[in-house]
Amino acid sequence: MEILDNSFGTIFKITSFGESHGDLIGIILDGVPAGLEFDLEFIQSEIDRRKPNQSHLTTPRFEEDKVKVLSGLFKNRTTGAPICLIIENQDIELSIYEKYRNFLRPSHVDYSALKKYAGFSDFRGSGRFSGRITAGFVIAGAVAKQILKRYNIRVFAYTKSIGNIVDETRYSSDEIKKLYDLRHNSLVGAIDHAKSKSMEFLIETVKNQKDSIGGTIKCIVDNFPAGKGGPIFNRIDSNISKAIFAIPSIKAIEFGAGFKSAKMRGSEHNDPWILKNGKVQTTKNDAGGIIGGISTGMPIEFTVAVKPTASIGIPQKTVNIKTMENVEFEFSGRHDPCIVPRVIPVIEAMTAIVLLDCLLIEGHIPRVFNS
Amino acid sequence: MEILDNSFGTIFKITSFGESHGDLIGIILDGVPAGLEFDLEFIQSEIDRRKPNQSHLTTPRFEEDKVKVLSGLFKNRTTGAPICLIIENQDIELSIYEKYRNFLRPSHVDYSALKKYAGFSDFRGSGRFSGRITAGFVIAGAVAKQILKRYNIRVFAYTKSIGNIVDETRYSSDEIKKLYDLRHNSLVGAIDHAKSKSMEFLIETVKNQKDSIGGTIKCIVDNFPAGKGGPIFNRIDSNISKAIFAIPSIKAIEFGAGFKSAKMRGSEHNDPWILKNGKVQTTKNDAGGIIGGISTGMPIEFTVAVKPTASIGIPQKTVNIKTMENVEFEFSGRHDPCIVPRVIPVIEAMTAIVLLDCLLIEGHIPRVFNS
Amino acid sequence: MEILDNSFGTIFKITSFGESHGDLIGIILDGVPAGLEFDLEFIQSEIDRRKPNQSHLTTPRFEEDKVKVLSGLFKNRTTGAPICLIIENQDIELSIYEKYRNFLRPSHVDYSALKKYAGFSDFRGSGRFSGRITAGFVIAGAVAKQILKRYNIRVFAYTKSIGNIVDETRYSSDEIKKLYDLRHNSLVGAIDHAKSKSMEFLIETVKNQKDSIGGTIKCIVDNFPAGKGGPIFNRIDSNISKAIFAIPSIKAIEFGAGFKSAKMRGSEHNDPWILKNGKVQTTKNDAGGIIGGISTGMPIEFTVAVKPTASIGIPQKTVNIKTMENVEFEFSGRHDPCIVPRVIPVIEAMTAIVLLDCLLIEGHIPRVFNS
Amino acid sequence: MEILDNSFGTIFKITSFGESHGDLIGIILDGVPAGLEFDLEFIQSEIDRRKPNQSHLTTPRFEEDKVKVLSGLFKNRTTGAPICLIIENQDIELSIYEKYRNFLRPSHVDYSALKKYAGFSDFRGSGRFSGRITAGFVIAGAVAKQILKRYNIRVFAYTKSIGNIVDETRYSSDEIKKLYDLRHNSLVGAIDHAKSKSMEFLIETVKNQKDSIGGTIKCIVDNFPAGKGGPIFNRIDSNISKAIFAIPSIKAIEFGAGFKSAKMRGSEHNDPWILKNGKVQTTKNDAGGIIGGISTGMPIEFTVAVKPTASIGIPQKTVNIKTMENVEFEFSGRHDPCIVPRVIPVIEAMTAIVLLDCLLIEGHIPRVFNS
Repeated sequence: MEILDNSFGTIFKITSFGESHGDLIGIILDGVPAGLEFDLEFIQSEIDRRKPNQSHLTTPRFEEDKVKVLSGLFKNRTTGAPICLIIENQDIELSIYEKYRNFLRPSHVDYSALKKYAGFSDFRGSGRFSGRITAGFVIAGAVAKQILKRYNIRVFAYTKSIGNIVDETRYSSDEIKKLYDLRHNSLVGAIDHAKSKSMEFLIETVKNQKDSIGGTIKCIVDNFPAGKGGPIFNRIDSNISKAIFAIPSIKAIEFGAGFKSAKMRGSEHNDPWILKNGKVQTTKNDAGGIIGGISTGMPIEFTVAVKPTASIGIPQKTVNIKTMENVEFEFSGRHDPCIVPRVIPVIEAMTAIVLLDCLLIEGHIPRVFNS
Repeated sequence: MEILDNSFGTIFKITSFGESHGDLIGIILDGVPAGLEFDLEFIQSEIDRRKPNQSHLTTPRFEEDKVKVLSGLFKNRTTGAPICLIIENQDIELSIYEKYRNFLRPSHVDYSALKKYAGFSDFRGSGRFSGRITAGFVIAGAVAKQILKRYNIRVFAYTKSIGNIVDETRYSSDEIKKLYDLRHNSLVGAIDHAKSKSMEFLIETVKNQKDSIGGTIKCIVDNFPAGKGGPIFNRIDSNISKAIFAIPSIKAIEFGAGFKSAKMRGSEHNDPWILKNGKVQTTKNDAGGIIGGISTGMPIEFTVAVKPTASIGIPQKTVNIKTMENVEFEFSGRHDPCIVPRVIPVIEAMTAIVLLDCLLIEGHIPRVFNS
Repeated sequence: MEILDNSFGTIFKITSFGESHGDLIGIILDGVPAGLEFDLEFIQSEIDRRKPNQSHLTTPRFEEDKVKVLSGLFKNRTTGAPICLIIENQDIELSIYEKYRNFLRPSHVDYSALKKYAGFSDFRGSGRFSGRITAGFVIAGAVAKQILKRYNIRVFAYTKSIGNIVDETRYSSDEIKKLYDLRHNSLVGAIDHAKSKSMEFLIETVKNQKDSIGGTIKCIVDNFPAGKGGPIFNRIDSNISKAIFAIPSIKAIEFGAGFKSAKMRGSEHNDPWILKNGKVQTTKNDAGGIIGGISTGMPIEFTVAVKPTASIGIPQKTVNIKTMENVEFEFSGRHDPCIVPRVIPVIEAMTAIVLLDCLLIEGHIPRVFNS
Repeated sequence: MEILDNSFGTIFKITSFGESHGDLIGIILDGVPAGLEFDLEFIQSEIDRRKPNQSHLTTPRFEEDKVKVLSGLFKNRTTGAPICLIIENQDIELSIYEKYRNFLRPSHVDYSALKKYAGFSDFRGSGRFSGRITAGFVIAGAVAKQILKRYNIRVFAYTKSIGNIVDETRYSSDEIKKLYDLRHNSLVGAIDHAKSKSMEFLIETVKNQKDSIGGTIKCIVDNFPAGKGGPIFNRIDSNISKAIFAIPSIKAIEFGAGFKSAKMRGSEHNDPWILKNGKVQTTKNDAGGIIGGISTGMPIEFTVAVKPTASIGIPQKTVNIKTMENVEFEFSGRHDPCIVPRVIPVIEAMTAIVLLDCLLIEGHIPRVFNS
């Protein structure tokens, strides 16, 4: 745990700053190994996966989301110095927030923020509470992914369900390359083509009703080495879950068989070790690649629940905090009818950040890349 | 995230040490406010809730689990100095672990530990990986609870399900006092009497089959003040989940409506604010008391999944790591057929630790109690 | 100790980024209490005290050193969010550094940096090693000073000596207001007018000889409350010294009587407590306001040694690291003949940062200013 | 900086607990690489260097200071788990502290502690403020030294002066082996035989006068590799100085030429690099082995000032904090007339702790020793 709110990680440490409707949002990356050739194009492509207004299924807020480097590179390589990256805000809409500022939007942070910051926080577009802050996480995650890729480790997430439409298939991590292509062809980040179409239709329906809908995302990491993490407080599951809950709208996480484990017997859940091609593996990976907080060498697998977007266009009951009256109101701001597809790159990013940090802590990845 | 594995917390910081089958297990509490009258009796009563051999449903390992204070008190009050507390181990059984040490027990940490510590870790009774280490968490949690009680905050957990036997009732936090009594009368930490009996019967059945079974635990915190936590990385849900996954056997956590949120529409999930007796509240608390990572003033509610105990008496397939052969073996050590009831006080403890730390960080609780 | 190099502090935490001859240098301030009216003019005035090319006695590098706010303010007040501030670099001179890059400049970081970063660090103008990085510290220190001023705490430093010209007067902290004016009238940050003139003359002489000269700086903090800090590792002297050595060129620090204490007897050094106007005080303050790591309520006083600038225009012996030969060379870059006057605001800044952080940790200063 | 007072270090992290006149003092070592054969005998020999009642020149308090291991070893090797070590207190004298508790002992922590802990701290023998706490540092330092020795790095300190008797000789680090023997033959930890005798005589004189005396200690570290530390806040000098001021009675520290640098010109202070036997070295090492916060590969050298023991047997003026009156009193407790010789092993210990931690952070020393 940090005492402050805006930094995460130990050796690979990110510090978030900026506001949703301020001048910019930014991120400082500290602890990036020196000597890394910086792949700004890849970072931009990751940002693009999260940016608003990608299709008719996302918010109409227009942001180019062009990432800029302010420090830490020299001759396009990392130097060991902190790397500061920013995205300038463009489509800033202020009046609406001023207008509604005394109405506590249901399931929004207005009341919590008011109690915490005594009215001083930047309330425009939820300020620091905005999902837009996670664009910085995606930048950091892209750098983490680039480094993990050198070690053949890939982090992959996809939409497992939207509302009641669930893709129950258990995809093998061997297929990840193929899965990338399938996900790429889906507007909602799903793998199964038919399910994807149903999900899209559901989101459109919900959107037309000025409502919103939740979903689940599954994340798979392959080739993560065995024996990393710690048995007490540096458990990989502990650290991943802490990171994942830093993403707005996440309400649950389960590793491997997760809640299903609670219904199982040991004889059913236990996962025998076997030798396969001289390598120690498990047969089922119900543990999701983590036992006793430490990696087993099997794919790390977890699923998260994303709640429906709180901003909806339907009249809702709430409190006017200034007049202290129960009221009904209709908030007309722009919003995503379903945030799930845009959360996928953020899930991948936070996972990559945690796992890179873990490998740096363990000395598995050096502090300087000599080649 | 800490770089080291054995400490947790920022102002209220715990450091765990000791081994399951070493001389003792212990905990250092740092940051406990000075001037607190120390309630060792309460700590012991909490330890007793977790200790082995409480009934025929738990492991037969016999441990008195008597807690001793080594430092930090003066005239039975805290002084602001670190408090070191220990529990000496009594029923140490070594030969069995030596005998089986080359067999990778399925769903146990043997392989992960081997990869991490190159064979140097204390493998007796899983050493640092043992659930016994959590007795130290319970000590720390008892002190945290004692302090939270001064602020009228109570942390309460109970068995929601064992296997397929689920108590679906949504208990109100208003009834917590009554719930304590009901839980007290259940051998398995359940509230509903009939469900409790079914759960007990299921555990006994499983035990007779030398098998084990999982379950879920629900935790409720009442009177936690609104506006605590942080919007980015110090989210209360982030910190609770990190803490909860530090408990062996936990595979999932969900806050409020959790995975159910993923199936909901915004109009269904959103939780209107209302004024009740002049106080701002929500109507349903599907958020589980946390929005945007910050407390809403409503009860904090979450549910966790506990996997079935990995140790079972049924023959299992695995690998002999010395001979590098696939083998079948039957591990005859002592174990709990269902660990759920003994995990309840640990869930409460970790939750209390996180929440106390949060209130100390926010300055809501002072560093010295003057009275 | 931090594992990373670029952050300092716990609740009031600063993160430094940027390079001497890159686009900019910057600082992130985290943990600044919400609700503070931001005094950018005061920050700029502090920066101006450190900026180059102030007089004929400083380096001719021209930098306007205009500070800009990128995040964290709303309606000119702090919001509780991290505040990112930058200074853009203007007078960037690159060719010279490329030319000399294989020569290990004596008493410069070239060799250390090479060993640490394997040649990847930004060597232009010493990059992250440059004294220019401390402009970020001054920004942070200005904010810290502004907050400390609310509590009537002032941090004041002055030039005590340049070379052999020493001002031995022990100024009382009661006179600090007067001392400000006297220092203001001195080109070298001294208090005594005659000494100041001698110091100026010495620096000019040294400059004409293409040489450099060292000096000492004394720092006094008044009105810091008693009972702050910690007896073990959070000692105020520990934390101040850690902070002060983060300033390039500092080679020594002493608190109160410092090295003189080593020659004293207890009967001479001991500082009797007396009641004066009902207030507990000491008679001499040889302890420099800190006993057992904790503040006594007396002024905090310490003195530091600043070594002569390593960059001189006189031919020097060294090693060509590429050809691995002993060589003689003359480095013709711009430099300060005496860095002491420009170090004064940095000493004050680092001291203010440590002391503010201490008061935030102790809960003496709140996390939100309600008025 | 830590938010809490009792832990130090990042990967090699020590946590201090216990009280001077409580049951015991202890230390937890976390982050010790797994697989290290534990040399308890060496630890004990280091403790013996610091223990009281070694000669007629030290305090008559009798303590056997026998170190015991409570956790973290298995088959006498480190396991990667935290190692808890304790020393039980024997010669506990309580009545005297109760008697004098309202008198603020001059230059003691009584007043600071009272303000900080509101009267709840353990005042017996200064409790946590006692120099006895540093016995735990010496334990940790002994383990650090044992590990550094594997890398041929030695930390050596000696008495440079007592009062006005100063040993001005600059000893070469090449002679450290010989220096050990010379120091061993001195009751006061000095190297020069004649100076040692004068120092002993001075301490005896001072003791007979019921007074005390200060001194200085010089510390030399050889074979520390170049390129370690960081340019901003993880400077080796920053971290050493923070660690050294954690030792009671230290009032000053200087690296290399230290305060003398302030009087020098650059042409005099600058230290040319030269190739000697194909190795890059400096000619003088006035920098004390650290430039820009990073090691140069030359010996790390620094000197500290130790103030005279505050406890003296001569009547002193002070305040009775209960009656709030100015009083005169004579404190008759046991004390060292000169603490310098007993501080030497503590200086070495804290230095070894910082440097080991640095090499672990840099990945120069692994987290597991495979042989």
